[in-house]
Amino acid sequence: MKKLFTFLLTLTFFGNAFPQTDIKVNKDRLNSTLKTLSTYGKNEAGGSDRVAFSKYDIEARKYVKELMTKAGLEVSTDFAGNLIGKKAGSNPNLKPIAFGSHIDEVPNGGDYDGPVGSMSAIEVVQTLTENNQITQHPLEVIIFTNEEGGVVGSRALAGQLTKEALQVKSSSGLTQFEGIKAVGGNPDRIAELKRNSGDVAAFLELHIEQGGNLDREGIDIGVVEGIVAIEWYEFTFKGFANHAGTTPMNMRKDPMLPAAKLILAVNEIVNSFEGAQVATVGKVDVFPGAGNVIPGEVKVNVEIRDLSSEKIQMVYQKIEERAKKLAAESNTELSINHIEVASKPALANPEIQKIIENSAKSLGLSSTYLPSGAGHDAQEMARFAPIGMIFIPSKDGISHSPQEFSTPEDIANGANVLLQSILSIDKQLK
Amino acid sequence: MKKLFTFLLTLTFFGNAFPQTDIKVNKDRLNSTLKTLSTYGKNEAGGSDRVAFSKYDIEARKYVKELMTKAGLEVSTDFAGNLIGKKAGSNPNLKPIAFGSHIDEVPNGGDYDGPVGSMSAIEVVQTLTENNQITQHPLEVIIFTNEEGGVVGSRALAGQLTKEALQVKSSSGLTQFEGIKAVGGNPDRIAELKRNSGDVAAFLELHIEQGGNLDREGIDIGVVEGIVAIEWYEFTFKGFANHAGTTPMNMRKDPMLPAAKLILAVNEIVNSFEGAQVATVGKVDVFPGAGNVIPGEVKVNVEIRDLSSEKIQMVYQKIEERAKKLAAESNTELSINHIEVASKPALANPEIQKIIENSAKSLGLSSTYLPSGAGHDAQEMARFAPIGMIFIPSKDGISHSPQEFSTPEDIANGANVLLQSILSIDKQLK
Repeated sequence: MKKLFTFLLTLTFFGNAFPQTDIKVNKDRLNSTLKTLSTYGKNEAGGSDRVAFSKYDIEARKYVKELMTKAGLEVSTDFAGNLIGKKAGSNPNLKPIAFGSHIDEVPNGGDYDGPVGSMSAIEVVQTLTENNQITQHPLEVIIFTNEEGGVVGSRALAGQLTKEALQVKSSSGLTQFEGIKAVGGNPDRIAELKRNSGDVAAFLELHIEQGGNLDREGIDIGVVEGIVAIEWYEFTFKGFANHAGTTPMNMRKDPMLPAAKLILAVNEIVNSFEGAQVATVGKVDVFPGAGNVIPGEVKVNVEIRDLSSEKIQMVYQKIEERAKKLAAESNTELSINHIEVASKPALANPEIQKIIENSAKSLGLSSTYLPSGAGHDAQEMARFAPIGMIFIPSKDGISHSPQEFSTPEDIANGANVLLQSILSIDKQLK
Repeated sequence: MKKLFTFLLTLTFFGNAFPQTDIKVNKDRLNSTLKTLSTYGKNEAGGSDRVAFSKYDIEARKYVKELMTKAGLEVSTDFAGNLIGKKAGSNPNLKPIAFGSHIDEVPNGGDYDGPVGSMSAIEVVQTLTENNQITQHPLEVIIFTNEEGGVVGSRALAGQLTKEALQVKSSSGLTQFEGIKAVGGNPDRIAELKRNSGDVAAFLELHIEQGGNLDREGIDIGVVEGIVAIEWYEFTFKGFANHAGTTPMNMRKDPMLPAAKLILAVNEIVNSFEGAQVATVGKVDVFPGAGNVIPGEVKVNVEIRDLSSEKIQMVYQKIEERAKKLAAESNTELSINHIEVASKPALANPEIQKIIENSAKSLGLSSTYLPSGAGHDAQEMARFAPIGMIFIPSKDGISHSPQEFSTPEDIANGANVLLQSILSIDKQLK
């Protein structure tokens, strides 16, 4: 008897493998709204030009607002331009369960990236409303502003959007400030949006994986352990620019050589550790950069990502050590510039991870735990709320490309896991 | 007696170590005209902005034309905008001995590059005129159009300036076509300028070394063996651009790695041969070139220079072999694009080399033989005339920079060697 009680308590606390509800999202309707959304900004090459603040973004927002309203949400645009849809719960003392994603795309992007999570969030509310299911917690659907241009909307909610950041130009050509105004926000009052710990019960985001793990392994659902930290370092080797014809080989101080060695060292070092950490040299700048001039300066951009900041530091230390050695050997000057990108990892709440895993299981879906190598709005929400992320397979791991694709089944699976997870959280979390 | 005769014959034929004349150029006047020329286009940072076809170039040409006229030359501007100054010789059957250089500079260039050879050429004629020295051969001073922008004026004389080349934009912003018009040429009639073998008895160019050999070794005069051939090859490694966060290290097809290895291989291979050949990677292009994207394509520009085309081919073959191996190992696609720059070396005439060496010796100056790693108008003149080049020391080997410097003594030494060499050629060559 005591054992059974403990078992039930465990089930209640850690989630269980029975569905919270038998109702399911409407797969056809979900894929149809996704299809309609994709028509806003579709270019001739089949890609999406729905960059944030573009006319396509503005038109698409109207469509999305209609969908939200129809789903039973009370919709408003906040000072940062985020579309916020609210639905009351049965217990007025509880804080909202929030979920959502974004509808903006990178230039010539695809149709699945943010839209899958956005349309699924609305579809989940539509399904609950149709079935007269009232949660205890209020529900809040958030369609974030300009995710692709630096998680702008979620940074605003986390109180991280500085005045300087608002002056940065977006892909639309407008600054963030101008763009937020164009979509109905009030950038002068963004500071008022800051949410604090306890303001939101939980935040969930459904997203395509963007990597190829789920697709390759044939797994339905990814339970995201967290969003990796990203560090950027710019290594500059300074030699002496000189005439490529008149300077004998043994009289050169060519920074291209230590730079090339560093590129190889980055790869060797990141692979020398166990784990999922990645390091990339995606940018090399050569000055003056002419075929007939020995470079005076070469800049190598090194990006390192991992769920653990300590792991990133371990990898970085080895790279820095090597860079110093290479500079000394080649008689070049080394300077290192640390560029902050997203310095802290955003870990998913362990209870929510378990809830997502059990939600998948209850629906007969396979799942695996994995990190998110890409950034998401959830990383900013994690600054003040427990978060969870649900990944669905992305064909061949392709993303930010017109070739991006997830099957209608996978999309509906993701939305159903989102629905079940919201209901579990509604029961289990305060 | 027979021995003495042979000795005299040898002296006559191969040049000798006695000066042809006791007269010398006016060192102060030479350095003063050089100084005046430097005022045309001097910028605030101390550099020269006298790029070809600029207002500074046009104003400086007037000054130079005056100097030439005063020196006893009959001056005209040819269809390519070259300033041509002619002085008759005593034997109307002989072809002219030509000499000269250019007065245009690279943007923010120095005061010595082409000006030293230009002002010295005029000073030599001024000196001969003042001393009533009439050569057998006619003399021709040529101040070439836009040397820095692709040896434009000398290419015109060699019949190598195509209609397409005339449409290329120069540093002034004007196309070569427009620029040539602006300095008084007639670009539509450039084809008529083509000179043929036998039209010019010899061409001499005095120039600063641009490399650091003479300055470092403390040698007065460089006898140029020839102007190196230059070959450019663009190696493109094609992999697969992907998300730097979501693509595990072992799933990448990153062209940056074989590109970095090729950069190191170029250095290793060019150093593995004996000789003065040089190879440079001065330009690397990464696509898309963002810190958070694994590159899809990396282009590595390899330049090889040597006096021997065969040596360049030997070096290139090894580099190509290695590039193919690197592409295969990294599972990337390799394509190689050969860009023609100056595919043939321009060798100096051996007799003229000897004459220059002996002229230096007759003046008590030290000299050494060396190749020119930089391109010069002489390389184009070599297509139809025997050429020789005289180098003087360039401080620290710096050129194309406001820091460019040669001492007044070295400049006068160069001009005196030019004078003696012209007189020796006048006696020895037909």
